[in-house]
Amino acid sequence: MNVWLVGAGPGDPDLLTVKAARLLAEADVVVHDALVGGGILALVPPAAELIDVGKRPGRPVPQELISTLLVSLARDGKRVVRLKGGDPFVFGRGGEEAQALLDAGIPFGVVPGITSAVAAPAAAGVPVTHRGVAASFTVVTGHRRAGEHEIDWRALARVGGTVVVLMGVSQRATIAAELIAGGLDPATPVAAVQAATTGDQVTLRGRLDELASADVRSPAVLVIGAVAALELTGVVAPAFSGGR
Amino acid sequence: MNVWLVGAGPGDPDLLTVKAARLLAEADVVVHDALVGGGILALVPPAAELIDVGKRPGRPVPQELISTLLVSLARDGKRVVRLKGGDPFVFGRGGEEAQALLDAGIPFGVVPGITSAVAAPAAAGVPVTHRGVAASFTVVTGHRRAGEHEIDWRALARVGGTVVVLMGVSQRATIAAELIAGGLDPATPVAAVQAATTGDQVTLRGRLDELASADVRSPAVLVIGAVAALELTGVVAPAFSGGR
Repeated sequence: MNVWLVGAGPGDPDLLTVKAARLLAEADVVVHDALVGGGILALVPPAAELIDVGKRPGRPVPQELISTLLVSLARDGKRVVRLKGGDPFVFGRGGEEAQALLDAGIPFGVVPGITSAVAAPAAAGVPVTHRGVAASFTVVTGHRRAGEHEIDWRALARVGGTVVVLMGVSQRATIAAELIAGGLDPATPVAAVQAATTGDQVTLRGRLDELASADVRSPAVLVIGAVAALELTGVVAPAFSGGR
Repeated sequence: MNVWLVGAGPGDPDLLTVKAARLLAEADVVVHDALVGGGILALVPPAAELIDVGKRPGRPVPQELISTLLVSLARDGKRVVRLKGGDPFVFGRGGEEAQALLDAGIPFGVVPGITSAVAAPAAAGVPVTHRGVAASFTVVTGHRRAGEHEIDWRALARVGGTVVVLMGVSQRATIAAELIAGGLDPATPVAAVQAATTGDQVTLRGRLDELASADVRSPAVLVIGAVAALELTGVVAPAFSGGR
């Protein structure tokens, strides 16, 4: 009777942790989000049950129901993996589920995953920190929920480091306007990385004052700051196993 | 002839990615930092060469020399893994090494790793974001190098999200003073997670105005903000494989 809250990483099954891969192989039930791609779900053994609680538009599964489901499955003696895109504690609401399991007395563990906030920029050749260019990075979500703190974008503009926005595509006009109002140069480089680390990855690059009108499609990670002008992926390395 | 810049994650070998574990098993040479622990280095096959370029006090290996070494090993036809603690692009200077490889025309790839900035707090039961508590997090390093941007800690204090400081133990008095001067409540919760995800993990908790005098030892990750009061690790889950 236990539950693992597991980060699935940015999309590529190879970027699962060793621990996540092992837990998936041993699970009785995998409760997953819409953000978790098919390549990863293919690793779940056929005998295990897959439950999709993805919060798609128009068909939301309330967070309370997900927590109740996890508790119930655990009490049935199932080995439960709660699989979340990226990292469970980076806008994954893993904290709420952990709290619910704690309150119910269900043993649980948390397995961090590679957050798209770092891996999506990296996949486009953008380091979120870089000597002489950015000495900090801030990760924010553009998606505000009821009861959520508002982001002080103008204060953020004054920090001077890289800004990484998750789930911010629909709010990109407001975000750009607020950051510029806060003092960021309108010419600040921006990279929008769509479907990072999957076969469908596309990166759009431009300036902060062009972001509002850019044709960016969800899911995308927005990277705002001088590092977004870097493109450290000039030569593609073959996998070692194909190398000799 | 190629090089992989690989993140080793926070310390626990189980938190390597599947890809990192495979590349380590296939490497001819592993060039690693001091931050990479013995448990991970034990995964390197006996036939492979291990080169420690850890920047220990008093015996620094200049960054340029590391880049030159990587280029030289690649030109010798070796399968090279450059293994860094955490993620290569989060204060890992991976960007500089990628640039050097790009300039030399050496094929390379980057494999993200779990950054301690997220995993160390998680290991102590602290989510870096939490609904109604923190809607952003900023990752900074306390360790300033020559030519590095200064952090505007006072602006950071006004952003209102979680602040995660890597390599900040020796600078903790200054950091706390600047954040309080910027407007952070002196009673803001702080968690200092030492040797996260290893067998030696210790977490100290307190208030921001107590940080300067706290007996925190390196390496430690400092988490500053309301989330640091959370401790979502009340019940330890056994691994599934021990479960039935």
